[in-house]
Amino acid sequence: MVPRFLDLAVLVVSLWLLVSSSVGERSTPFQLTEKQQCRLQRITAAKPSQRIQHEGGETELWNERDGQFQCAGVAAMRNILRPNALSLPNFHHYPRLVFIERGFGYISVISPGCAETYEAGRTQTTRESREKWETTERGRERDLHQKVHRIRKGDIVAIPAGAVHWCYNAGKEDLIAISINDLNHQSNQLDQKFRAFYLAGGVSKKGGQQEYEEETIFYNILKEFDTNLLAEAFNIPEEIVRQMQKGGEERGLSIIAQEKMSFARPDEQEEQGREGSGNGLEETYCSMKISTNLENRRDADIYSRQAGKVNVVDLHKLPVLKYMDMSAERGNLFPNALVSPDWSMQGHTIVYVTRGEAQIQIANHNGESLMNDRVNKGDMLVVPQYYVSTARAGESGFEWVAFKTTGWPMRNPLAGYTSVMRGMPLQVITNSYQMSPRQAEGLKMNRGGQSFLFSPGRERQF
Amino acid sequence: MVPRFLDLAVLVVSLWLLVSSSVGERSTPFQLTEKQQCRLQRITAAKPSQRIQHEGGETELWNERDGQFQCAGVAAMRNILRPNALSLPNFHHYPRLVFIERGFGYISVISPGCAETYEAGRTQTTRESREKWETTERGRERDLHQKVHRIRKGDIVAIPAGAVHWCYNAGKEDLIAISINDLNHQSNQLDQKFRAFYLAGGVSKKGGQQEYEEETIFYNILKEFDTNLLAEAFNIPEEIVRQMQKGGEERGLSIIAQEKMSFARPDEQEEQGREGSGNGLEETYCSMKISTNLENRRDADIYSRQAGKVNVVDLHKLPVLKYMDMSAERGNLFPNALVSPDWSMQGHTIVYVTRGEAQIQIANHNGESLMNDRVNKGDMLVVPQYYVSTARAGESGFEWVAFKTTGWPMRNPLAGYTSVMRGMPLQVITNSYQMSPRQAEGLKMNRGGQSFLFSPGRERQF
Amino acid sequence: MVPRFLDLAVLVVSLWLLVSSSVGERSTPFQLTEKQQCRLQRITAAKPSQRIQHEGGETELWNERDGQFQCAGVAAMRNILRPNALSLPNFHHYPRLVFIERGFGYISVISPGCAETYEAGRTQTTRESREKWETTERGRERDLHQKVHRIRKGDIVAIPAGAVHWCYNAGKEDLIAISINDLNHQSNQLDQKFRAFYLAGGVSKKGGQQEYEEETIFYNILKEFDTNLLAEAFNIPEEIVRQMQKGGEERGLSIIAQEKMSFARPDEQEEQGREGSGNGLEETYCSMKISTNLENRRDADIYSRQAGKVNVVDLHKLPVLKYMDMSAERGNLFPNALVSPDWSMQGHTIVYVTRGEAQIQIANHNGESLMNDRVNKGDMLVVPQYYVSTARAGESGFEWVAFKTTGWPMRNPLAGYTSVMRGMPLQVITNSYQMSPRQAEGLKMNRGGQSFLFSPGRERQF
Repeated sequence: MVPRFLDLAVLVVSLWLLVSSSVGERSTPFQLTEKQQCRLQRITAAKPSQRIQHEGGETELWNERDGQFQCAGVAAMRNILRPNALSLPNFHHYPRLVFIERGFGYISVISPGCAETYEAGRTQTTRESREKWETTERGRERDLHQKVHRIRKGDIVAIPAGAVHWCYNAGKEDLIAISINDLNHQSNQLDQKFRAFYLAGGVSKKGGQQEYEEETIFYNILKEFDTNLLAEAFNIPEEIVRQMQKGGEERGLSIIAQEKMSFARPDEQEEQGREGSGNGLEETYCSMKISTNLENRRDADIYSRQAGKVNVVDLHKLPVLKYMDMSAERGNLFPNALVSPDWSMQGHTIVYVTRGEAQIQIANHNGESLMNDRVNKGDMLVVPQYYVSTARAGESGFEWVAFKTTGWPMRNPLAGYTSVMRGMPLQVITNSYQMSPRQAEGLKMNRGGQSFLFSPGRERQF
Repeated sequence: MVPRFLDLAVLVVSLWLLVSSSVGERSTPFQLTEKQQCRLQRITAAKPSQRIQHEGGETELWNERDGQFQCAGVAAMRNILRPNALSLPNFHHYPRLVFIERGFGYISVISPGCAETYEAGRTQTTRESREKWETTERGRERDLHQKVHRIRKGDIVAIPAGAVHWCYNAGKEDLIAISINDLNHQSNQLDQKFRAFYLAGGVSKKGGQQEYEEETIFYNILKEFDTNLLAEAFNIPEEIVRQMQKGGEERGLSIIAQEKMSFARPDEQEEQGREGSGNGLEETYCSMKISTNLENRRDADIYSRQAGKVNVVDLHKLPVLKYMDMSAERGNLFPNALVSPDWSMQGHTIVYVTRGEAQIQIANHNGESLMNDRVNKGDMLVVPQYYVSTARAGESGFEWVAFKTTGWPMRNPLAGYTSVMRGMPLQVITNSYQMSPRQAEGLKMNRGGQSFLFSPGRERQF
Repeated sequence: MVPRFLDLAVLVVSLWLLVSSSVGERSTPFQLTEKQQCRLQRITAAKPSQRIQHEGGETELWNERDGQFQCAGVAAMRNILRPNALSLPNFHHYPRLVFIERGFGYISVISPGCAETYEAGRTQTTRESREKWETTERGRERDLHQKVHRIRKGDIVAIPAGAVHWCYNAGKEDLIAISINDLNHQSNQLDQKFRAFYLAGGVSKKGGQQEYEEETIFYNILKEFDTNLLAEAFNIPEEIVRQMQKGGEERGLSIIAQEKMSFARPDEQEEQGREGSGNGLEETYCSMKISTNLENRRDADIYSRQAGKVNVVDLHKLPVLKYMDMSAERGNLFPNALVSPDWSMQGHTIVYVTRGEAQIQIANHNGESLMNDRVNKGDMLVVPQYYVSTARAGESGFEWVAFKTTGWPMRNPLAGYTSVMRGMPLQVITNSYQMSPRQAEGLKMNRGGQSFLFSPGRERQF
């Protein structure tokens, strides 16, 4: 019988992600208020409004009723894990994209139907793929489980809807992660509420401020389950089930591990080698890459010696993002440099400031200014789809990570080499703005070969 | 001119289903109440709440305002056709998946633009594909029409949105069918109301209880159409049109045929042979398979000598389901056997009990129990996406058919060979549940190679 | 650095459209009223309800609160450009399909990230693709910009969401265009409001009647933008930016050009040659065809010597329509000829009458008549998905253009060669309508090989 299940598992998982997107494109018809329809009067950079303490760290939540987050259909959170802490296994009904702001550790995203693949001995680490459970003494000594991924500062980690995941801080400093949860994702037929299902731990009372008092959001799913049924399903004594249920919510969302943990994980080299391989359709899910690092200067998608750089991770670099329909960018602006005024054609953008400061302006579709503020480290804000925005770095430069509710983000810049102005004939510009051909040429050409990121200063370069 | 139309028809139909899904992925933005957002307090197995009698049988409807059906966005019905009865031709604006609970007969699903393909002589049955209408005397004697499919107990039949279909009971006992209508399907730009458009017959008054009094749901579309226009369109006398219109709703949804009907249909063998062929993209729609049988023990996707079996029909086995984004499973549990606690990642599940009884528990996302009831033959219930559920068969076993609002259903079991627990390292389990390594090993391993279906009993097997 | 950007641009644009549809299949969860759910009591052909005058012409809007347009989720407009007028560059958050009713001119749809490709000298026109900006004297004299397309009477032009476009009337008569904007399109995560973002010009006060008084709809996005930031982004003097901002809304939506404009454009031959090439996936976006002409009699998809013809443009003929999920047809009925009663399976149909008159009937799903009216030149009406409709041309014939909210429209005719009736066995017809086999044969066969378009008269042809 075991071979039958193995076949089933391989079949099942290789198609899971494919299906979750291309077929599960069912609509999620939630009732939105006027606010949620992105009729924003004003956008203000926000800090977290709620903090939940747990044994191994804390979780900060942005106010999901803030109009900008409702417009984008996302919930934002910041997780802090202390050294040697373990975030307890949980899943949620929407995809989550995570940016590792600081620290290093391990994460495991458990795929449905993937049999355990990696094996950890007690004193040494070996790896055998697709090995089935063995009942020999030798087999008993091993722990077979699914792949554990190393995470470090600058990583973007993709967690698909419905997958169970846990995370461990293996470093000496706090492990800090910024997460965006896409509540509007097409695969979600449930509702638009932000919550997570915990297999252990959980929080059932409000964790902090008044904002969320009417609802608990981090549930323990085993707590009230029929003890007898669970015992029979796992084929274990009822007292162990009761222990699993009882311990539930006292521990919160994370715990401090009793001893330092170490995991069998694939050879780093091998994981790198898989990076550019194909379009995600022929990859089997069990071996699919779920993270990539955005700190590498050499890989910058946009690089300007005078202005800064931007690294993008989209469905092309990380195929799992095709199924999550999300993406991210990591940006760095030099002091006083600018981002071209532009609009995003495919989705909303959620910006989180990681260092420095900038003046950010977002133009109302009414021509008025929705936002024209200085933002600092720790601020988060939403730039809605099609809205024109721009940024100018402060004296100490500006660093950010931006999450997008689309798998392939497209910027439509007003100025620069690949801009809308550059695409228009001179005659159209002179007539549209009633300016001279020389002025129109300046408007089209003065940024020369610069694209997206502009050096400071306003002297004509031609 | 005829060749021109033939070309058009072939072109048109081969792309119809492809398009209906991959392009028609437009959202259907209906207004949902709080209830429809799956904020259920309690799930209770339900029996039909309304019965409509018609000449050839009866139609039972589950209450579509029951929160569980609103959460799933489906309407459920049970149709009974007497021997020699014909359900009248109709179509609807959502896809329908049908399970034949009893009996045998014929169904035809008429594809738009497919020229008639099969031909029935009066005394013998022959088959010629793509034959065009002939004006010779010989041609007049034949009846060219589209393919008629044989249906029998255990069949799952797929009826795409907008296709006209009729059904005939050719057996000696009642033909009984359970249908789930997916009102939320992406192809539906109209509304979420359950109704059908009848070409003949129909019901315009409420058929039974108070539930539906404010709306008729089975409309005759010809009834009030301009007689003169119809006569001219069909090029027939007006009195015949008036007869078609007048007879409309007296006959209801089915009639008893004047004499036993027989149909030209493809060779059984050939239909079988086509079963495993390809992914549905290269198949032309006119020859696409619309049904499969789930009773065959040999084909079970999950089979346990101690616990039972499950047969699944998804987009892989029946490619038309890719376009309908629905699927089904047929399950059979031995007395006292269990289904692993699991959650569905891709859609809602609608369970209908066909035999025996079971204790079913569904865990609230709040950790509380949404349902912990005994269900019996004829009961129907919804397990929402991501909710954890489990079942234990009664003394006489348990048999069911489940419909899913996704083309590829994925179960995420908590226990067993392909489970979440099995995917976690021992260290994570010991720390998460504060248990000993030996207890954690039991939790991971005590179900051995069993997957999804578990034999009764709770003694440790290791 | 320039080569880096060139690579980026090529990469970016070749995937833009692919992504905008197949990945961006996120739902747009707008709140709909009962009316918007297509619960129409009556459909009445409508004329524009609002007119906005601008320097170079006028814009007429149909009332977007009319139930039929809300049901279809579209906004309809008619634009008139005087000779030598330029419609000012703008974009919108939904796709638009345009039919050129009269005149000829040029349109440019500016693709994000496509570097300028065409170059216009002052006295002669040459073309070099992918040439980069040159700083030599020779380079300065040229104007590099994106492709400009010629448009003429009978063209269907596709404008994707978020793309900047402008249009110029190069003829001696008015250039008249009918546009349908698909507000419900899946790529739209913003809201369902009809509006456009103008880079120059715009209208901020209500343009006409009371209907729209509470909201402006054609916004100038630069007007209130930070002058200093814009000057720095474009690297031009602030006074030029102020001039761009100030002139904004005085000029409205179009202007009269100071002198006759001419554009470098690709050789006509070459554009034709590209017509049948592939499925749109391997085409790079920068060279993708955005228009096709529907006036050519030779290309008719349905042609009847007795009844008329229909030309269809769908995703197969114009691959960009796959990503917009819209299509169109151009029809011509001879005097007294008919369109078969039929229903559309994939989307709503918006009909605009270009010449002549017809009696149009639409059957309510309740069997009652939603519409049974005579329509004339300039009328517009919506036929909702799945509703049965038919038309009979008046004494002077009937000419129309119809827009559909699906990339591949499918008609399901009741009568004629590819009809539902033809697909049913005689036995089913005789039993369903209680008619004789001879009458049933007449119902199936009396239209012989005719399909969709029927000649007048009601004598039996067999």
